[in-house]
Amino acid sequence: MLPQNMSLPLDEISKLDFSIKRVGTPTLESHLKDVIFVDDSETISYCADNAENERLIKEGKKVPAFLAAGPRKQLYFDAAWVRVAIATCGGLCPGLNDVIKSLVNTLYYSYGVDNIYGIQYGYSGLNPKNGLKPLILTPDVVDDIHTKGGSILGSSRGEQSVEEMVRTLDRLSINILFTIGGDGTQKGAHAIHQEIEKRKLPISVIGIPKTIDNDLNFMDKTFGFETAVQNAAPIIQCAHNEAKGSLNGVGLVKLMGRDSGFIAAYASLASSVVNFCLIPELDFILGGEHGFLTALERRLDRKHHAVVVVAEGAGQNLFESGNDVHDKSGNKLHKDIGPLLKDAITNYFKERGKEINVKYFDPSYNIRSTEANAMDSIFCSHLAQHAVHAAMAGMTDAVVGNWQGYFTYVPIPLATLARRKIDPCSQLWQSVLLGTRQYMDFGI
Amino acid sequence: MLPQNMSLPLDEISKLDFSIKRVGTPTLESHLKDVIFVDDSETISYCADNAENERLIKEGKKVPAFLAAGPRKQLYFDAAWVRVAIATCGGLCPGLNDVIKSLVNTLYYSYGVDNIYGIQYGYSGLNPKNGLKPLILTPDVVDDIHTKGGSILGSSRGEQSVEEMVRTLDRLSINILFTIGGDGTQKGAHAIHQEIEKRKLPISVIGIPKTIDNDLNFMDKTFGFETAVQNAAPIIQCAHNEAKGSLNGVGLVKLMGRDSGFIAAYASLASSVVNFCLIPELDFILGGEHGFLTALERRLDRKHHAVVVVAEGAGQNLFESGNDVHDKSGNKLHKDIGPLLKDAITNYFKERGKEINVKYFDPSYNIRSTEANAMDSIFCSHLAQHAVHAAMAGMTDAVVGNWQGYFTYVPIPLATLARRKIDPCSQLWQSVLLGTRQYMDFGI
Amino acid sequence: MLPQNMSLPLDEISKLDFSIKRVGTPTLESHLKDVIFVDDSETISYCADNAENERLIKEGKKVPAFLAAGPRKQLYFDAAWVRVAIATCGGLCPGLNDVIKSLVNTLYYSYGVDNIYGIQYGYSGLNPKNGLKPLILTPDVVDDIHTKGGSILGSSRGEQSVEEMVRTLDRLSINILFTIGGDGTQKGAHAIHQEIEKRKLPISVIGIPKTIDNDLNFMDKTFGFETAVQNAAPIIQCAHNEAKGSLNGVGLVKLMGRDSGFIAAYASLASSVVNFCLIPELDFILGGEHGFLTALERRLDRKHHAVVVVAEGAGQNLFESGNDVHDKSGNKLHKDIGPLLKDAITNYFKERGKEINVKYFDPSYNIRSTEANAMDSIFCSHLAQHAVHAAMAGMTDAVVGNWQGYFTYVPIPLATLARRKIDPCSQLWQSVLLGTRQYMDFGI
Amino acid sequence: MLPQNMSLPLDEISKLDFSIKRVGTPTLESHLKDVIFVDDSETISYCADNAENERLIKEGKKVPAFLAAGPRKQLYFDAAWVRVAIATCGGLCPGLNDVIKSLVNTLYYSYGVDNIYGIQYGYSGLNPKNGLKPLILTPDVVDDIHTKGGSILGSSRGEQSVEEMVRTLDRLSINILFTIGGDGTQKGAHAIHQEIEKRKLPISVIGIPKTIDNDLNFMDKTFGFETAVQNAAPIIQCAHNEAKGSLNGVGLVKLMGRDSGFIAAYASLASSVVNFCLIPELDFILGGEHGFLTALERRLDRKHHAVVVVAEGAGQNLFESGNDVHDKSGNKLHKDIGPLLKDAITNYFKERGKEINVKYFDPSYNIRSTEANAMDSIFCSHLAQHAVHAAMAGMTDAVVGNWQGYFTYVPIPLATLARRKIDPCSQLWQSVLLGTRQYMDFGI
Repeated sequence: MLPQNMSLPLDEISKLDFSIKRVGTPTLESHLKDVIFVDDSETISYCADNAENERLIKEGKKVPAFLAAGPRKQLYFDAAWVRVAIATCGGLCPGLNDVIKSLVNTLYYSYGVDNIYGIQYGYSGLNPKNGLKPLILTPDVVDDIHTKGGSILGSSRGEQSVEEMVRTLDRLSINILFTIGGDGTQKGAHAIHQEIEKRKLPISVIGIPKTIDNDLNFMDKTFGFETAVQNAAPIIQCAHNEAKGSLNGVGLVKLMGRDSGFIAAYASLASSVVNFCLIPELDFILGGEHGFLTALERRLDRKHHAVVVVAEGAGQNLFESGNDVHDKSGNKLHKDIGPLLKDAITNYFKERGKEINVKYFDPSYNIRSTEANAMDSIFCSHLAQHAVHAAMAGMTDAVVGNWQGYFTYVPIPLATLARRKIDPCSQLWQSVLLGTRQYMDFGI
Repeated sequence: MLPQNMSLPLDEISKLDFSIKRVGTPTLESHLKDVIFVDDSETISYCADNAENERLIKEGKKVPAFLAAGPRKQLYFDAAWVRVAIATCGGLCPGLNDVIKSLVNTLYYSYGVDNIYGIQYGYSGLNPKNGLKPLILTPDVVDDIHTKGGSILGSSRGEQSVEEMVRTLDRLSINILFTIGGDGTQKGAHAIHQEIEKRKLPISVIGIPKTIDNDLNFMDKTFGFETAVQNAAPIIQCAHNEAKGSLNGVGLVKLMGRDSGFIAAYASLASSVVNFCLIPELDFILGGEHGFLTALERRLDRKHHAVVVVAEGAGQNLFESGNDVHDKSGNKLHKDIGPLLKDAITNYFKERGKEINVKYFDPSYNIRSTEANAMDSIFCSHLAQHAVHAAMAGMTDAVVGNWQGYFTYVPIPLATLARRKIDPCSQLWQSVLLGTRQYMDFGI
Repeated sequence: MLPQNMSLPLDEISKLDFSIKRVGTPTLESHLKDVIFVDDSETISYCADNAENERLIKEGKKVPAFLAAGPRKQLYFDAAWVRVAIATCGGLCPGLNDVIKSLVNTLYYSYGVDNIYGIQYGYSGLNPKNGLKPLILTPDVVDDIHTKGGSILGSSRGEQSVEEMVRTLDRLSINILFTIGGDGTQKGAHAIHQEIEKRKLPISVIGIPKTIDNDLNFMDKTFGFETAVQNAAPIIQCAHNEAKGSLNGVGLVKLMGRDSGFIAAYASLASSVVNFCLIPELDFILGGEHGFLTALERRLDRKHHAVVVVAEGAGQNLFESGNDVHDKSGNKLHKDIGPLLKDAITNYFKERGKEINVKYFDPSYNIRSTEANAMDSIFCSHLAQHAVHAAMAGMTDAVVGNWQGYFTYVPIPLATLARRKIDPCSQLWQSVLLGTRQYMDFGI
Repeated sequence: MLPQNMSLPLDEISKLDFSIKRVGTPTLESHLKDVIFVDDSETISYCADNAENERLIKEGKKVPAFLAAGPRKQLYFDAAWVRVAIATCGGLCPGLNDVIKSLVNTLYYSYGVDNIYGIQYGYSGLNPKNGLKPLILTPDVVDDIHTKGGSILGSSRGEQSVEEMVRTLDRLSINILFTIGGDGTQKGAHAIHQEIEKRKLPISVIGIPKTIDNDLNFMDKTFGFETAVQNAAPIIQCAHNEAKGSLNGVGLVKLMGRDSGFIAAYASLASSVVNFCLIPELDFILGGEHGFLTALERRLDRKHHAVVVVAEGAGQNLFESGNDVHDKSGNKLHKDIGPLLKDAITNYFKERGKEINVKYFDPSYNIRSTEANAMDSIFCSHLAQHAVHAAMAGMTDAVVGNWQGYFTYVPIPLATLARRKIDPCSQLWQSVLLGTRQYMDFGI
């Protein structure tokens, strides 16, 4: 029983470095009360199957395990003097404000830190040429922010000069930088950490991973994902209503999922009205006997309506190669599968003289810019609390993860090693197939 | 104090024909119990201002007034024999299923009618060449349908041969046809009525007007409109969150409103985060001192984010004239203002070397395909009840309207005379200006 | 076609005084731009039926009509000097914060008033012995408040010394007092006005009527009512689920409605799962052939589950008379029909040896303390705008009403003359009977 | 890093029996396609801390681990002949209909089983004296049921004769019984299994654990819990609005949680407006320096409003002992802490001559009778799929569990051994304290 969606064999995982770096040795006594301190010897096994772990031991290999998150008895930073900066980067995601709020409250109420700055518009705000002033964050300022979507700090994509950013941190005497963002952001945080190390500055860099696509490796889930799935459900229901509302109606819904189809898959599971779910992990073709259009035609001939959910990164094989474009965060920009499918479906049926009514939905902004739902909100609070515990203890170059129900600390290079993807043999995808029954008309 | 949004002067209204046609003289005694029957002498004044009405009387003019809706003591059709057909036409609108349900329940439980047919996919279902079978509708079939968006009958746009449709009604021995649809649908219903009259068939045609845009003349409101406004509110909030989430962020939301900006205006009022509301009634220009882009630039320079709501029919003056296209219902197809604005904004700021982040929302399908909210649901029930009262009494070529809080019967030619529009001097538009304060940066 | 729910015959209404009092003659020119000023000669006919109005004229009687609301060309108060106070009284109601926000914004942006005070906890805040300081209200303070339920000013019930309150207004140099509250509050406002008149103070008192029960006479609807109906719908659905979840399950839901059953009736219409709707307007008995319990038993024998909606003021005839209690606002406190019914049902079936599972819902606080929905929110804005127009023009002792789609000004003594009630012969109640079909098992 | 909320030390856990019973040896080849079969050797370690597991091995103790759930290569039952019964017992819980739907769909579409019966009203439906006929369940029947709260099968509490129930199963030739219910239900299922064993009948009994309180041991979470937390959030917000709406307003919300305070704790975390969270795990006193009332008074003196969330099982120490009552499922009935607190608060402040306005919320039925949210809905599908896999492979006397992100099979005696409770030293409770800051005024 190996971890689902594992991108590497266990023996390769065993060779990876799970250890967390430190800015310095923690020597101050923590004043936290009524908490159970977590010791650095406490770890969470990567693999839940004990037999596999025993095998590794017998073969003299390291049993891979994450450092357990939690408050440390010994701190590195002195709450009275420490100065903290928080930045949110990349696209919006439900829960950003919950993370900010909980960082501020934990720093202030649990540790007694009161120099907390919000960097405006992500890494841009660390580049003085952009002229953006940091905001002063207090419990009062963040009191209500979790009821709003978006980020009170604003966000941005794109690289900034690492040297310039570290100079800014140094000039502002920042000791702790919390970076809330995705793959690109955390790679940036790693670069910042390296520059800090080079300059021997006493600055801890701790990330809270943010990917609405839920595609981070070494992590069970990321915040905002569950809210996104929940937000997608009523829109898929609308697509179903539109599809049934006209003869040969097709509700075509494009959802987020650049490289991994988790949102599309979970949203299809949650709404049992989806007939085709197309994800980046599984290429497909349009025409011919095994093509999607032929499958759709079979479905429409039988039922006269259909709902299609497509992840934004699906079907990239359908585009001509060459001239790839990248966004400011360095992500390869996908060609837009939504309009391609919309046109392909319409033309296919028109050529055959059949009525067709495609209604296209592109709700990504609606889905990602709401406030977090109750469970995501709580999850964000915990992530932020553990981020503060790590930072105050002087850890650096790490993100807060969660594994098998426990919160963990994961070195940034490990967390950004590869993207998590849907395994077509996994229970998740099998459930999607059971729900859509797309295998009946369609190979995948 | 004249009716707001009146398209004609009162003296012109006075010349219009408010009288309702009949299939024949009602002679059967109604068996409805415990109701207050409404007499044909009861009318609702068009103009609420008594002084104006007195003036008309003195000048020997007719005081315009609608026939009051309600159950009649004398019926034309015999419930035991009558056969009823129901069709939904045009785009989806919240409440279609409520209307269908209430028609069926009122016919069945109040009058004892049990031959009720649902025509599939609008007028298409009356054309035998399409091979669509009518559904049999009973209280059991419609029991739960009001909890779903869309229409259980399906809908369609486009004209069908009037003669063919009347032949179908005749062949199926239909006595009452309920047409739930907009301007085009009711014009079609009028054509059907004329063909019925020509053939001297005993068929009553009663419309329930459906326009999510709320742009029917001689009607205070149409069903689905309030739900649409309510559905738009959280999407505009998302646009606000996206706008604040990036430097010079612009949340651009296109809402329904082909010829009238009611949804855009009400949604802007309901969400107090809208900075510019653009409607079809008020032309605007893009560039130059009084242009929209200049106004937007002023706003962004000051606040760094903005929300723009644009009705789909706004800014048609910005497109080159010529080669107009019409949809299957005969509505002139508007060129798409959404992408035009999106590109214009982006280019304008790029040319000026300013950062700009436009997030474009096109949520019309989401908004129109949900179930009706509580008040719309009740409103639909009442419309349907009055439609049944009218039909059973033998009225024809009429729609159910509502005026100053009363339900009315309105001749179809009157109801389709012109579209209702927002008067720029009305309290509605003044409130929008007060809310957006767009007059500060922008002429309109 | 007389106004529904009218409590008096038209000829009696004709004798009532519809004229609005003034603090003094308005002589200042209004600086409002782009608005259509409303003249004091513009009125809204009380009766929509022109024939009835003509009859009154012929008989030499006054045609009753409300003064039309709207901005006046001549103002009494000078925006630069005027000082305004706002108070919210009585129970919470969706939309209170919308009214406060729109009062402040209209005063500030339209008229240029910037001395606006929020009185804390209703009339209590005008009594210095309670030591409550007024809040200073600006557009910034109220910017976001419409997204929250409740009232940022707090509220209270109960009488305060009128003399004390007027002394406070005088001492603070208040010129305009806005009172947002129900029947009791507006009677209090009238008393304050009389004391002001006695002292010849230049203070205008304008009310915005607030009754979630929607039971104000001379008013089509009051704010918050539609939101309350909408909020009740999912709770009634839960009651239905609970009822179906156990053998002979009864979902019993008590809703607001002290003297009038509008919320119960509309909520029953909106949720088509209600089997019995009990309202204060129609007495009923429990036992015997025509009793409610016998009717419920018939229903359960047939279907094994039932949903009962009961207005809080229903069935007061079932309680023994004597020792009535009144709340602090002077409203007669009703005995609690909810637990009485719950126990009566349980005992009735237990005595008969039949299984019974009553699930009791008492959701009033949930329903009234949410934010307003989109249409209520807009309605509140308009009410507040018209309240400001009235006050600035020097009107007093009046509330803002709405009649047949128009906003009006109504003298407080008229508005508090009597409560509006459901007429058992009205279309509203007939629709409820059609929906519940309670007449089948139950007389009413 | 030991499992949170563990009720027993690891060495005791090590002695427990984790093995799953079988009706017989599975010998039929599974025809499932494209799935990864799970082998009986695959297990999920109880303890995530590898060091602890290694210690057990060295000490010669058994490493506790759950059998991994999933499809088996060898089946016991033949899909063509097998007859299945499904029962839902105990109180309603979001997701019941999702579980039923997924059981039916997995049986029908994955395995080809088409004899599926729904037992009405829980175990009552297995007792012939109640005269309840089983429903025939097909994919069509269950197509839409997940959009409704409640259970289409109905439910009941209370014991039935085990012998009678097994006789019924035998008479109906049932081979698989799925029991969806809580602690009492699963104990009942165990008794049924024992009777089946005694009679040597070929009947598999598989449970899907249902406890909205989330208090099952050996399980990370149970379905419906997250939906309940989400449903509680807006109600707590209403309580906050009511509290702020009057001077010394107290919003008092009773939530579910008979023996464990998980819903109260999570709901308090999700709504950051809660000032006191009272749970069964932590006794408290009312009066005196360290009493709750004194703490509340301090809070009100400072802020004039407060929100109190109390789990239904909290404060049982405040009731006089003796005469305990039990419900039909054998659960000890708790005395009602809600009204006790409401009265205690009111009297305490009245005695001190201070104004107090307590608004009491008892929303349990609203919270539990809605449909499941998106993630719970998916979770229910997976639980049901694994239940079918277990049953078809001939497992019995087991429930489907989940542990550290994996689905597991847990012997019923293990699952019903004890209730899971909140550990006051856990991160969960520490987060609640951080959020409420109740430690400031109040010991706990």
